This record gives sequence, C-alpha cells and structure tokens, in this order.
Amino acid sequence: MIKKFSDKDLDEIRISGKDIYDGCLLHVMKDRVKLPDGKESEREFIRHPGAVAVVPVLDDGRIVLVKQCRYPLNTVMWEIPAGKLDHGAENLEDCARRELSEETGYEAKEWRFLCSIATTPGFSDEIIHLFEAKGLTAHAQHTDEDEFIGVQAFTWEEINNMICRGELFDAKSICAFHALEIKK
Amino acid sequence: MIKKFSDKDLDEIRISGKDIYDGCLLHVMKDRVKLPDGKESEREFIRHPGAVAVVPVLDDGRIVLVKQCRYPLNTVMWEIPAGKLDHGAENLEDCARRELSEETGYEAKEWRFLCSIATTPGFSDEIIHLFEAKGLTAHAQHTDEDEFIGVQAFTWEEINNMICRGELFDAKSICAFHALEIKK
Repeated sequence: MIKKFSDKDLDEIRISGKDIYDGCLLHVMKDRVKLPDGKESEREFIRHPGAVAVVPVLDDGRIVLVKQCRYPLNTVMWEIPAGKLDHGAENLEDCARRELSEETGYEAKEWRFLCSIATTPGFSDEIIHLFEAKGLTAHAQHTDEDEFIGVQAFTWEEINNMICRGELFDAKSICAFHALEIKK
Repeated sequence: MIKKFSDKDLDEIRISGKDIYDGCLLHVMKDRVKLPDGKESEREFIRHPGAVAVVPVLDDGRIVLVKQCRYPLNTVMWEIPAGKLDHGAENLEDCARRELSEETGYEAKEWRFLCSIATTPGFSDEIIHLFEAKGLTAHAQHTDEDEFIGVQAFTWEEINNMICRGELFDAKSICAFHALEIKK
C-alpha cells in the first residue's frame, strides 16, 4: 500500500470544489486550493475507483500478457491483465482473481502483493495495486461484452526486448516487472 | 518511441465523437466506436499533450528526486523531475532539459532516451518520454509560480527500499528505473 505524507512547505489545502463532469467512466473535479505561500490556485482532476493488475507467471517462468485495443491511443497494446475495482471498495485480491480469470482464463493458487502505484498523480487519483500470481491452471476466458482480448505467454528476455523496442509500453506492466525484480 | 499496431480481431473504429469538457488542464472526449464484433459502444477519455520525465544521475551514482504535493491524491510524493510538453509539439529533449533545470536547478551534459510509456491507456492518451541525464552541475531552481518542490538525492538501495515500503509509488519513476536497469 502507498504511504501518504504531509509537508507544511509543500501542502495544498482544499478551499472549495465542484463536480465538473460525471460520465460513465470519468468523473472530473475542479477544486480551489490554498498554496504553500498563501496564494490560491485551481486543481482539475479525475476521480478514479482504483484498479488491480496481475503478473501471471507460468510454471516454466513465462509471463502471460493480454493484448487489447486501447482506444484513447488508437492502438492495440500488450499489457498484464488488469481491471477496475468495483466501486473502489472491493477486496483487492478478489478483484485480481476475477480479472485474471475473465481476461486470460487462468486461475492461480499462489498470490503475492507487490506494491501499489499512482499512474497519473498530476491529474487523477488512480492507484493500481500490483500482484504476482503463480500455480496457474488454464480455464475458459470470459470477458465483458465490450472487451476483446488476445492472450500469449512470453519469456523475460522477450519482454525486456519488447520494452526496449517500444512494443510494450504500458506503465503498470513495467512497474510490476520492476517490483518483481527488486522483491525477488 | 512507442510502436502502435493494429489487429483486425481487436480494433475499435471511431464512428463519431464530441468534446465533453475543455478545461485548463483536462480535455474530455466521448467517442462512439464500432467494436470488433460489429456492435457499438462509447469510449470516454482524456486528451493529454504528453510529457517527459528525467532520471538525474549524480557523478557518485545517486539519483535526484523531487517531492511535491499531488493534490488529486492528497499527499506529498517523491518522483523523478517531469513536466508536460508545450502543446505536444515541443522537442522532447528540450522539454526534459527545461523541466530538470526548473524543478531541480541541475543542468546535464549527457542525455539518453530510455523509452516512452502509456500511463493510463484505459482513459487517457498520455505518453511520457523517459530520459537519463548525467554529467550534472548544480544551478538555481526556478519553478513555476504555483509549483513548490523539494529536492534530494538517494542511493539505488534507498530508492528500492522506498518502493518496497510504499514510500515511492509514482509509476513514471518506477518505469524509468526499470528501463535504466534493462538498458544498462
């Protein structure tokens, strides 16, 4: 979990705020804040329920990735399986199990929490909780109605090459690989 | 740079779209799309100009981090220096030089591009371009009017411990550390 901290020389204090847009996915807020020097400014940001992401490690050491269209970027992308928390209050490991199962069909015996990350602290409050899943067994993929997802396993060497060549550029996936590396 | 790709079994095709909210920082879009099975759905997302982030490496190997209030998360955070591209069209290395200088006061002789990352492909098109900066010399910090930033150098061991303890949880920073590791 992340450890928040306060620093009187840097803190920004909320004066007032309003909801700007409440969409299906995006909730935009605009707050007036007091800066550390006493002046005022505005902060626009997105409220997000939070998410989980999973590095699924096969018994032979290969990593299972999913590929899906990421419409905002107009491309198909390779990523680790992930999904939003239901209303932000769901148990993290339950959510990780569900997303792994839905997107890849895999179920895992061993779960390990790696770390949590802030994806875009400048403009959203999204936190993604990262897990490692081992002891995998294959079942049927069962995605949401508007989700279309391909599944493939890669060696670590292949994944590192994909990152270096710009073919795997998803931030949460790269963070999870780094957390696995430093928590070996 | 990232390599976009297309896959006819996964692609989502734009039918129509509209601007939902055009703020100081956030630009919200809502597009109607055709899914791979021919059905239709809606995609809400944030247009972002893109950004750069820099790992500043001192001659003794320590890494320079900045701490600043991240209002959406209601916390002060440790991160590598970073900043948005002006209108998305600025030269990447020029932007990296400016942000490093503004936020930390350091100027660097040696620059190396590491990789680019998509921070939140599910709901924005933000791409952050990551650089390593070496051959650092200290000058005066000169932040924007509403920016308050602390600066401190850490060893790799300290940084890895901070990640493991949840004290450094910024995605772009962790991605940059991983890229440095695999591109050594």
